This record gives sequence, C-alpha cells and structure tokens, in this order.
Amino acid sequence: MPPTSTTSQKALSGELFALSALDRWQTFDRIAAMDKLFLGLLIFVPIAIAAHAAHVSDTIVFFVSTLAIIPLAKYIGQSVEELASHTSPAIGGLLSSTFGTAPELIIAFFALRAGLVEVVKASLTGSIIGNLLRVLGLSILAGGWGKERQTFNRTGVLASGSTLFIALIALVMPAIFLATSPGIPAVVVDHMSDLVAIALLLVYGAMLFFSLNTHRHLYVEEIAHYEAKWSMERSIVTLIGATLAVAWISEILVGSIEPLVATLGWSQLFVGVIFIAIIGNAAENFSAITVARKGRMDLSFQIAIGSATQIALVVAPILVLSSVFFAQPMDLVFNTFELVAMVLSVLVVNIIVVDGETNWFEGVQLLAAYVIMGIAFFFHP
Amino acid sequence: MPPTSTTSQKALSGELFALSALDRWQTFDRIAAMDKLFLGLLIFVPIAIAAHAAHVSDTIVFFVSTLAIIPLAKYIGQSVEELASHTSPAIGGLLSSTFGTAPELIIAFFALRAGLVEVVKASLTGSIIGNLLRVLGLSILAGGWGKERQTFNRTGVLASGSTLFIALIALVMPAIFLATSPGIPAVVVDHMSDLVAIALLLVYGAMLFFSLNTHRHLYVEEIAHYEAKWSMERSIVTLIGATLAVAWISEILVGSIEPLVATLGWSQLFVGVIFIAIIGNAAENFSAITVARKGRMDLSFQIAIGSATQIALVVAPILVLSSVFFAQPMDLVFNTFELVAMVLSVLVVNIIVVDGETNWFEGVQLLAAYVIMGIAFFFHP
Amino acid sequence: MPPTSTTSQKALSGELFALSALDRWQTFDRIAAMDKLFLGLLIFVPIAIAAHAAHVSDTIVFFVSTLAIIPLAKYIGQSVEELASHTSPAIGGLLSSTFGTAPELIIAFFALRAGLVEVVKASLTGSIIGNLLRVLGLSILAGGWGKERQTFNRTGVLASGSTLFIALIALVMPAIFLATSPGIPAVVVDHMSDLVAIALLLVYGAMLFFSLNTHRHLYVEEIAHYEAKWSMERSIVTLIGATLAVAWISEILVGSIEPLVATLGWSQLFVGVIFIAIIGNAAENFSAITVARKGRMDLSFQIAIGSATQIALVVAPILVLSSVFFAQPMDLVFNTFELVAMVLSVLVVNIIVVDGETNWFEGVQLLAAYVIMGIAFFFHP
Repeated sequence: MPPTSTTSQKALSGELFALSALDRWQTFDRIAAMDKLFLGLLIFVPIAIAAHAAHVSDTIVFFVSTLAIIPLAKYIGQSVEELASHTSPAIGGLLSSTFGTAPELIIAFFALRAGLVEVVKASLTGSIIGNLLRVLGLSILAGGWGKERQTFNRTGVLASGSTLFIALIALVMPAIFLATSPGIPAVVVDHMSDLVAIALLLVYGAMLFFSLNTHRHLYVEEIAHYEAKWSMERSIVTLIGATLAVAWISEILVGSIEPLVATLGWSQLFVGVIFIAIIGNAAENFSAITVARKGRMDLSFQIAIGSATQIALVVAPILVLSSVFFAQPMDLVFNTFELVAMVLSVLVVNIIVVDGETNWFEGVQLLAAYVIMGIAFFFHP
Repeated sequence: MPPTSTTSQKALSGELFALSALDRWQTFDRIAAMDKLFLGLLIFVPIAIAAHAAHVSDTIVFFVSTLAIIPLAKYIGQSVEELASHTSPAIGGLLSSTFGTAPELIIAFFALRAGLVEVVKASLTGSIIGNLLRVLGLSILAGGWGKERQTFNRTGVLASGSTLFIALIALVMPAIFLATSPGIPAVVVDHMSDLVAIALLLVYGAMLFFSLNTHRHLYVEEIAHYEAKWSMERSIVTLIGATLAVAWISEILVGSIEPLVATLGWSQLFVGVIFIAIIGNAAENFSAITVARKGRMDLSFQIAIGSATQIALVVAPILVLSSVFFAQPMDLVFNTFELVAMVLSVLVVNIIVVDGETNWFEGVQLLAAYVIMGIAFFFHP
Repeated sequence: MPPTSTTSQKALSGELFALSALDRWQTFDRIAAMDKLFLGLLIFVPIAIAAHAAHVSDTIVFFVSTLAIIPLAKYIGQSVEELASHTSPAIGGLLSSTFGTAPELIIAFFALRAGLVEVVKASLTGSIIGNLLRVLGLSILAGGWGKERQTFNRTGVLASGSTLFIALIALVMPAIFLATSPGIPAVVVDHMSDLVAIALLLVYGAMLFFSLNTHRHLYVEEIAHYEAKWSMERSIVTLIGATLAVAWISEILVGSIEPLVATLGWSQLFVGVIFIAIIGNAAENFSAITVARKGRMDLSFQIAIGSATQIALVVAPILVLSSVFFAQPMDLVFNTFELVAMVLSVLVVNIIVVDGETNWFEGVQLLAAYVIMGIAFFFHP
C-alpha cells in the first residue's frame, strides 16, 4: 500500500530530529576516513594549550583553539550516543538530544562568564543561519552535482520547518517588544525573556514527548539500527575527558576573542556569527554533506534543520535562564540585523524545499545567501 | 473519478468561508449540551446590568459583561443564519456573511464612541491572532490527540490563506507608510486609510461575487443541508433582542475598561488583544474546536481562517470609514508590535498547513506561539 | 510514463526564464494585431522629439516620451531574439537573456546621469512589484475569467520563486545594514553594495550555466520551435536604430521628470515606481497576459517572475557597479517602504501559486495588493 508506506516514511523522517543524532554517528562509523581526520585534528588540543602558555599571538591562539574544539565536540557527541545506546530507547533519545548541544553550551558559558554576551548571541544567530544556508547549501550542491535532480520527502522536511518557525517567533517577539517600548526597564525585558525561554523549553519537552512517546513507533526502526561500539566505561571516560578538554580550550579561546577583535578590526558580531558558530557542530556539518552525497537528502535536511532548531529550543533558553549566575544577564533580544538574517534564512529554506526536489543551482542559491549575509556581517560595526 | 471529486471537494471547502457560518450553527444544533451552556450564560446579562447599576468594582463589571456578551453574540449569529435560510441562497449568503460580524462591530462602535481607538485596534489584532493561533491550535490539539494524524484538504485551506495575506498587506502598508514618512499630516494618513478600506471592501465584494455567483455551484450542497429551525418571526425578534442587549452590555463593558486598566495596571493593548478579541466570536471558537474533534479539520480551518479574514476585510474597513462620525477618527495604522504578531501568525499558519496533515504537536506549536505573543503583549507598555 | 513526463515538463517550465524571452516573441509573431499596435505607437517617437524641441509642457513631454519608449523597447527585444537565433543556442540564450534588459538599463543610465538615483531605485522596485502583482494579477484575471480554474505546473513556478527570493535577500540586507549601523560612512555602504552586486552577478552566471549547460537539454525543445524571421542585417540595423532612439527619447524623458514632479506635486518615488517601471517591459507585460488568455499559465508565470528576477539579478547590480562613472554613486540601499512592498509581493506570489491552480478571484487579489501599494506610494512624500 504505497500511501501507508509514504506516510510512515514521511513521519519517520518528519519529526525525527530529536533522534537524528543517532543516525549521524552511524554514518560516521561507516566513514573511517572521516574518523581519522577528526582523530588527527586532536593534535591541535595540545598545540592550543601550548600556544596559550607560550603567550603567542592571540590570533594564532584563536585559530588553533578553534581547530582543537572541532574534534572534541565530535567526541562528546559520539560518546553521548554510545552511552544512550546502553539505556532504553526513551532515555537514550532524551540523553542524546539533550546533551548533543553540550559543546555549544560549554563555549557559550565561558563566553558569558567573560561578559561576551554579544558574541554568544551572534554565535546562536550564526548557528541557525549557518545550518540553514551553509550546511544545506553545501549538501544540496554536493548531492546534486552531476545529477539531474535529488528528490526528498517534502512533507517531512516541511513539518520540521514549522517547529523552526515557532522558535523563530520566540526570538523575534522580545526584540520587537524592546524596539516598540522605548524606555522600558531592562528588568522587564529580562522577565519576559525568562518566560519566553520557559515556553521554548516546554515546546522542546512536548517535542520529546511526541518523538519518544506518542509517535515513538515511528523511530523504532532508526533506533534498532544502532549497535553500541564502545563499552559503557569507554563512553563515560571519553565523555568526561572530551568535556573537560572542551572546557579548557573554550576558556583559552574566549580569552583570545577580545585581543583578536582589537588586532584584526573584526567586530564581535562577525567573530560570533561566522567562527564561533561553526566549531560547536562542525562534525554534524560534515555528516549532513556526507549523507547528501549518498543521496539521502531527507536525512541531510533533518540534520541541518534539526541542529538549527535545537539551538533555538534548547541552547538559547538554557543560556538565558542560567545567565542569572553570571555578572551580565543575557536576554533573548537579538539585534534587528541578526533577526532579519534569521527570518530570511528560515523563509528561503521553506521556499526551496516546498517542491520536494533540489538541484545544484538551489545549493548555489543558499550559499549565495550565506555569502551575502556574511559580507553584511563583516562590514557591520 | 478521484481527481474530479478531489477538486470539487477542494473548491467546496476552499473558499466557502463566506458561507461557512451556515455550517457552524448546524453543528451547534446537533450539540444540545453546548446550546444549554450558552443558554445558561445568559444569566450574566441581568447580572452585568445589576452590577453596573449597583456600582460594584469595575473589574467585576468587566468580567461579567464579558461573560454576558458571549451568549448574546451567539444568538445574533444564530438568528442571522435562521433569517438567511428564509431567503434565497444568494441573499442568505450575503446576509449571513455580512451580519455575522455584528457583535464585533457593536462592541467596537461603543469603544470608538468612548475614544478607545487603541482598544479597538488591539481587539482586531487579537481576533486575527487568536483565530489563527489559539482557535486553530486548540482545534488541532483537540482533534489530533490520541490519533496518529488528522488530514485535511491542503489546497482549499491554502486558497483561503491567500485572501488572508492580501488583507494583511492592507494592514501593513499604512503603518509602514506612517513609519517612513516622518512629519506627514494626520489627514493624509486618514485619506490613505479610507482608500485602503474601500479597496478591502471591494475585495470583499469580489469574494461574495465569487462565492455567490461565478463559483456558487460549489456551495449548493452546503446550503441544501440547512433547514430552518426557527420561524421568521422568532428569528427577527431574537435578532433585535440580542442586538439591543449586546449594545446595552457593550456600553457597560466599555465604560469599565478604563477603570479596569487603572486598577489592574494592564495596558489597553493587552485588554483589547486578549479579552475584547475573544468575546465577539467565542461561539465560533467552540464550534471550530468541536468540528475538529469530529475529524472535520477542513471546516475547522475554514471557520478559524474565515473569521480572521472577515475581521480584516469587513470589520476593520467599516470601522475606519464610519469613524468619521466619532470624535476621534480611526485610521488603519496598527503599531509595529501588532503588525509583527499578525505577519508571523499568518506565516506560521501557512507553514503548518502546507503539508496537508496535522498532529497534536503542531497544535502545541500554535498555542506556544499564542502564549509567547500573549506574554509579550502583557508586558508591553 | 506520467511521472517522467510530468518531471521533464516541470523542468522545462521550471527554470527557463533565461530563455523564456524566445517564446515571448514567438507569441508576438503569431499576433499580428499586437504587432500593428506597437508599430502604430512608433508615431510617438517623432511626436516626443518634436514636443521636446517645441518646449511644450513637460507633463506632455513626459507622457509622449513614455508612449514612444514602449514600442522601441519591444523592437530592441525582438531584434535581440532574431540575432540570437542566428547563433548557437548557448550564445543565443546568453545574448537574449542578457540584452533583453537593455531598455531598462538605457533609461536608468540617463536617469543616473541626471542624478535621479531615487527615481532609478524606485523604477527597480516598481518593476519587481509590477511584474509580480499587476502583470500576474491581470494574467490570472484574464486567463481565469469565465473558467472554473486555470491549472499550471506548480513545481516549476515555485522553483523560479526561489531565485527571486535570493535576489530579495540581496536587496534587503544592505538596507537593514544601513538602518542598524547609525553613523556608518557612506563609503562602507558603497563597498558592501559593490560586493553584493558581484554576488548577484555570480548567481546570474550560475543560472546561465544551469540553463545553457548542465540542464540545457531541458530547453532544446523550446529553442527548436523558433525560426528566424529577420535576416541578420535587418536584426542588427533594427537593434542599433531602436537602441539609439531609446537613448534619445530617454534623455528627453529624464529631463521632463523634475519639472513634472514640481508641476503635478507627485513624488519621484511615485513616478519611478508606477510610470518608469512600466515602460521598459510593457511588451512583455502584454505578452504574459496574452499567453495567460490562451491557458498557458506556466509561461505567463515564467515571463512575469522571470522579468522581476532579471531586474534584481542583472539590472540592479550593473547599475550599482557602473554608477562609479556617474557623479552620484548608486548603492543597493532601498528605503524601508520599497523593501516591505517587495517582500510582501514576493511572499504573496509564493502563497498564491502554492496550490497549483488559479481562478479569477486570485487575480483580483493580486491587483488589489497592487492598488493598495499604489495608493500608499502616491501619498508617500
């Protein structure tokens, strides 16, 4: 019965971003070459620490720290998946979708502690824009090159687009609120940000309930595919080790941002939107492009759109709510420039995917949008 | 022939919001329990009058008036439908779709007479947002709970979405006009508002011509279903009685708004967007949720999107054009905050419906958007 | 095999706006009556020159120049097509899609030389809005009147909508950049505009590579249809003659704008958005409506959306980059009012086309949107 098959396939790919992390690392398992690449990048961990200790130029410290975090973030993600596979599917799903954002959170915590609120917000903006334009654009271009077209399940991809749009509303309203309320006390904006952040976490909770309970059967097949590669001990040790290393390097990285900005004349906005945004989920980015190259455009879309959604539904509200512990509280008020970039990115992705197929030129379109935004962010004071 | 059947079904549900009121009340007839609820709410009519006469707290007067108008609005709607069924389908359709907005108009007239222009505009905003997010969200949640998914005719629903978007353009342009023309005389803005209002009424006229003339055959089946329950005399007497009562209570209600605002510290914006917006079409709201629960998502979408469209195409222009008779003329300039909320609501509904099916989580998404906007309106000065 | 046929038909109509010009003039060939109309309009060329020489009222000079350019622009387009048919398909496609915008460019050059930067930008805005709302609205109304519905290939039309949206992003970002960077030096805005303009031209190059190389087979059928009517000599002579005449009349036209504005009290914005925007591609407008009347809605959509896209991808960047040769450089910063009108137009077209069919009422909706925007532009200072 084709309709049923289409429908269940749709649902399967539809809302599974909560669990798609599972599949990301499966794909990695199959690609030993990529594993070696990430293993090799670990060399930058001691280099970054040494460079910092040797007080070399902050620009060098910034870039080697960046390169050091990329593999560490990948190993955090992988160990969380391995740990998850030792538990029940429900708890495993909760674990992997919640702790998958750990690298972004750790870097952001150190940046917040250093008072770099604008860098943190810019990195959230950059993660959302980057996943939707750079990652999807490269995926569509890589997957579509040399082919007439790539098809994918339109309905499913559109479905996860709606969650993303709700998250977008939550990011837009506080900024419009502030812009249209001249003279409003900062404490009111903080209160409103906290309430909106709680609403976002509740939506995330509903999404988990949907994917792990009421519509859980849709994901069973995905979960069944996965077999633990690591023992629980190895998973835990890797997780702790990689997390501590990310924390250490993050502190070094964050310390180099202000000197870097002063040296190169770049704005904190640009550094956050372009550089900090990439390092937290570089591994997922490679993964999305890899599966696209294999023709699995559904999964590629899920990884990219799912990552963007998690930034808005989990990372942003946790940072807002936990920022009471820092000297400078973080609200949900993004600047107009960031918001317009996010709104346009979300809309263009919805317009690109609505016809259920892609070709290389659509990938070029998304990349062009990313480059145009990048130019604007570069010149923005 | 499935294509033909699909297409005519599409057309049927597609643009029938002009006549969908007919079906609303049929559904009500079948639900005696709901009828009793509304009958019971009538007790608040004498209570509101007595409370006002006894000079009790304005907060109490406000809330009992609110409860009193809900059943009265329902009886106005029902008597208009009954009257319509005694005429030809064309005249009946014209009657019911035009006078279906009477309660909203009466309340707004009294609010305009009292100079509460911002409350009136806020109630229009609230009606549009509320129908699209609260009513649709509850409908999708109620209809989808315990089910894998609810399907509906995507094409038809998208078609009425386009009418809504045109109305949105008419609401956005005057505000952007004012924002980008510093120092423009108020009289120019009023002139432009009047012309835009006339354009909206012409679009409404074209919509009636479409549904009652060129594409009338699409609606015959719907009309044939309906059988008058009330005699013409009973319809007329009920209509006059309920209209006079709504007028009376509206005056009481409007008189309590300013003291209420002063007492509770709420803004006129919040009172208009959340409370005044609900009472005029609370009955339709229940109706939309009821039919959704029965799996008729098409009709539920039509009622909700159709109500939002009528607010913009009929209620808003009539208020603007008739406001010359009031001390303070009303223009079509909504504030940026209201506009952003309306634009996002219209876009999210278009994104949610584009895949032709819903599940409970999408209902939660719409409700989350409503709650987030409600939080922002609450804190807005 | 219906899927294949549908898909190739889709692709055919999908991205062919680069070559759609070919088909435009084929349609004209078949319509001798329209040819005579344009031939008759040529009488306004000497009238305009005489009126200018005789120093009659600038209002008269403006309107007769407008009428004179319309047929000249048509003959430039036609001679480019004829020339193209004497070359290889690839070079012909490049020629016709690149030089098809010559009339708009010539008028804009003279306006830029006269320092009328705002008129030029307004004419770009007006071309985009006008093609999407006026031309499409008239096409849908003319094509759908007296019919139940007109169908078209949704997928293909949506595909060219995405290119349009990317162009829109490029027009929005510089304005938001300026609005959110108070005190930014004009030279930075100019630099950014230049880079964005280069990015747009690269997207245009990719689009040509797509339509003339990797996906060229999709267009072969279209090209095969065309047979040269004119000799190469006649084509070249017509092209040179019409181009010189357009240049002459454009200079006269541009010279009459400032006195016209002073006399009638219209703004440069209004003159640019409504009048200058129409004359450059009036012939294509007639063509789009004509093919719609014949039921070829796909082609009608392609002409209208394709014209709007070329304005943004070719005309705008060429003007920006070449404006270094004029006294007053032109940047890509449109005013907020123009941008909102463009964004709403692009979104409404995407919403109207998403269901794959149209009826006359949707044409009325687009025209209503155009009228509402026209009212706003008329009153705008």
